[in-house]
Amino acid sequence: MSELKPVKIGVIGLGTVGGGAIHTLQTNADIIQSRVGRPITVVGASARDLNKPRLCDTSNIRLTTDPFDLINDPEIDIILELIGGTTLAKELVLAAIGEGKHVVTANKALIAEHGNEIFKKADEAKVTVAFEAAVAGGIPIIKAIKDSLAGNKIEYLAGIINGTGNFILSEMFGKGREFSDVLAEAQELGYAEADPTFDIEGTDAAHKLAILASIAFDMPLAFDHVYTEGISKLTPQDMQYADELGYYIKHLAIAREDESGVELRVHPCLVKHDQLLGNINGVMNAVLVKGDAVGPTLYSGAGAGAGPTGSAVLGDLIDVARNLHDEHNHALPGLGCKVAELEQPKLKSVGDITSAYYLRIMVSDRTGVLAAIANELATNQISIESVIQREHADDELVPLVLVTHETTEKLMQKAVDVIKSMPAVNGDVMLIRIADVE
Amino acid sequence: MSELKPVKIGVIGLGTVGGGAIHTLQTNADIIQSRVGRPITVVGASARDLNKPRLCDTSNIRLTTDPFDLINDPEIDIILELIGGTTLAKELVLAAIGEGKHVVTANKALIAEHGNEIFKKADEAKVTVAFEAAVAGGIPIIKAIKDSLAGNKIEYLAGIINGTGNFILSEMFGKGREFSDVLAEAQELGYAEADPTFDIEGTDAAHKLAILASIAFDMPLAFDHVYTEGISKLTPQDMQYADELGYYIKHLAIAREDESGVELRVHPCLVKHDQLLGNINGVMNAVLVKGDAVGPTLYSGAGAGAGPTGSAVLGDLIDVARNLHDEHNHALPGLGCKVAELEQPKLKSVGDITSAYYLRIMVSDRTGVLAAIANELATNQISIESVIQREHADDELVPLVLVTHETTEKLMQKAVDVIKSMPAVNGDVMLIRIADVE
Repeated sequence: MSELKPVKIGVIGLGTVGGGAIHTLQTNADIIQSRVGRPITVVGASARDLNKPRLCDTSNIRLTTDPFDLINDPEIDIILELIGGTTLAKELVLAAIGEGKHVVTANKALIAEHGNEIFKKADEAKVTVAFEAAVAGGIPIIKAIKDSLAGNKIEYLAGIINGTGNFILSEMFGKGREFSDVLAEAQELGYAEADPTFDIEGTDAAHKLAILASIAFDMPLAFDHVYTEGISKLTPQDMQYADELGYYIKHLAIAREDESGVELRVHPCLVKHDQLLGNINGVMNAVLVKGDAVGPTLYSGAGAGAGPTGSAVLGDLIDVARNLHDEHNHALPGLGCKVAELEQPKLKSVGDITSAYYLRIMVSDRTGVLAAIANELATNQISIESVIQREHADDELVPLVLVTHETTEKLMQKAVDVIKSMPAVNGDVMLIRIADVE
Repeated sequence: MSELKPVKIGVIGLGTVGGGAIHTLQTNADIIQSRVGRPITVVGASARDLNKPRLCDTSNIRLTTDPFDLINDPEIDIILELIGGTTLAKELVLAAIGEGKHVVTANKALIAEHGNEIFKKADEAKVTVAFEAAVAGGIPIIKAIKDSLAGNKIEYLAGIINGTGNFILSEMFGKGREFSDVLAEAQELGYAEADPTFDIEGTDAAHKLAILASIAFDMPLAFDHVYTEGISKLTPQDMQYADELGYYIKHLAIAREDESGVELRVHPCLVKHDQLLGNINGVMNAVLVKGDAVGPTLYSGAGAGAGPTGSAVLGDLIDVARNLHDEHNHALPGLGCKVAELEQPKLKSVGDITSAYYLRIMVSDRTGVLAAIANELATNQISIESVIQREHADDELVPLVLVTHETTEKLMQKAVDVIKSMPAVNGDVMLIRIADVE
């Protein structure tokens, strides 16, 4: 069973990202094994302080304070570099490449500032350095541009890629609060660092933009060329005027290529009310990418945090692990796992689903109709959230519109069957389910 | 230079998708070659009628009416199946697999209805069958779920994955039009087929949902189990009531897994005004995916058309082609292309960019201030789109807010320098660029 030989990894850094990634790897070990074709084992992990509480179970992991213990361990196939910073991290990543190990990193500053050197070394050593987690947290934007849109000439991309900044602007807009006031709250909530300069002055977004632009436009990383303006001068009054003019204010990172060259810039921007990018709020991130063939596409999700960033680290890790099979077999099964090994789960009938419901019932406007309908719903343990009842013209049918709280489809269909048969109810009941999505 | 040996492909079907894919492959041949590491050559293509005008240049392509000519050509590495339908297409795909060829397809019905058999055969033959283009056109949703989110247990996904239906609902909502009226227009515009049943009754969305659910929940394809309701009974009145209650009505495809099983359903849904999914309009598609680690992520873009669907076909094709290198080298360069081969393009300074601008200028309310500012802008060929001028309290400064048409940053900065120095202008000028994005 050489196929089941585990992929062995070493994790440098057990903070939010490292702890989060290992936690998800442990929680979803079974599905990840079936998706990779063999298990992924965390052989060792390093941290500065081995006594801190962690987000993951470390009981079966060899812990060390020296990350080179992991890099020099011949058993380890893949190194996860999750410490941040550009000095030690660079040394570690280059050393791992030197040892012929693949590297997964979440380190945007490292890639933006030293990526040209790192990728050159990785190309020479024929190892992968993957960095999905470096940009926009859990949003798979690197892979989307590098692989999925690879047939396109990218015309531009524009992103909200700093969650702290977007949280501040969303609060300033929504509540008319001053910048400094919201910043203080963001620091209390842990969204902003004690020194928030990187976030609010745009350096963090510039790092990420340099990475995105490099992939989109097939160019070396050019962090030093990013024009950068922060958000600290914006006022709630500007938000209000922009709103009156039909715009939100967002901190955008924009990269665009035309015949005269490439522009790279991070600054506040007015974005029209009806554009998706304008409606990305709070700590959420989004990137809009326009390709010549595909047109505009947008990707949104959480830009930071243990879960989302860990998800991106694992996506890269699984990618590399799938390619590590001993025999040369690049054919990733069509459904992600081998179809012969898949089992059909219990498939629910529609009667088993739960939902809240919109009902439109055409009624002759007799006294007591609403009461009768409400009573029938109550009999089936269905409670009403809101009602719209229109005024009526004499003798005509009037629509009675109800929104219910959540119930099961089975109970709802039972109630609707009775309601349809009521003498005051005319014709069919229009039933529309209410989406229970985030 | 064995590295530059081209990847040779055969294209079955030269309609919208096939013609669009080849057109983009021709237009972007240089960047695609650099991203794959070698050229991709269309050796042959098949179509029923060889005399029809095509979206692509066919002058260097061997044309045939018999697709088996391509499948049986030992020179061809990869077959693109782009004819649709499930009878001949199935025969062709299975034959290509039998010949050890990789297959890229855009055929949602084929995958949804016969995918279990096809993937089993492909697994056994160790070839890839890729189908990104089968779901949501240019949106890279298959790869996002299969690769990028592979560390997650997917909790649910919900998508607007039929452009025709979404166009109809958007028009009904926006303009209060009746279903049948908008459907007739959609048919005239070419958005809806002469027989629109597949789109408006939800079969097309059910095909796509079955594919997404299979990947998300590691289960065999279960198209027959999708509960499906169409949109033909919806009225503009329902749209209006829903709106009053704080919702849009969208045709959603939903797949969800919990401890009691998996539910698969396509039906109209109320979606809250402030949710991104509710704000996907016209022929655009979007899919919301919630993973246990990453949380909610959303992907949107064009769901159909030559460019977008061709983009998805090329994404798959490039993926397969990158893995066809003669030597076993799975290390896709970090930036997509080898960093040593990348050249820095001309990087524009911020002065060279063009933008429309928002300006907030604090002025003492003297007669002629607006005229002087407008005059300075005009001197620099900058025209004004709109002005907000607040009423003033005696002697206080009042904000003058201007939005300009597009100009260059250089001219704008020149004008702002002069405006700042005007005696009636107090302090700095707040300048915010307006995003020029779709």
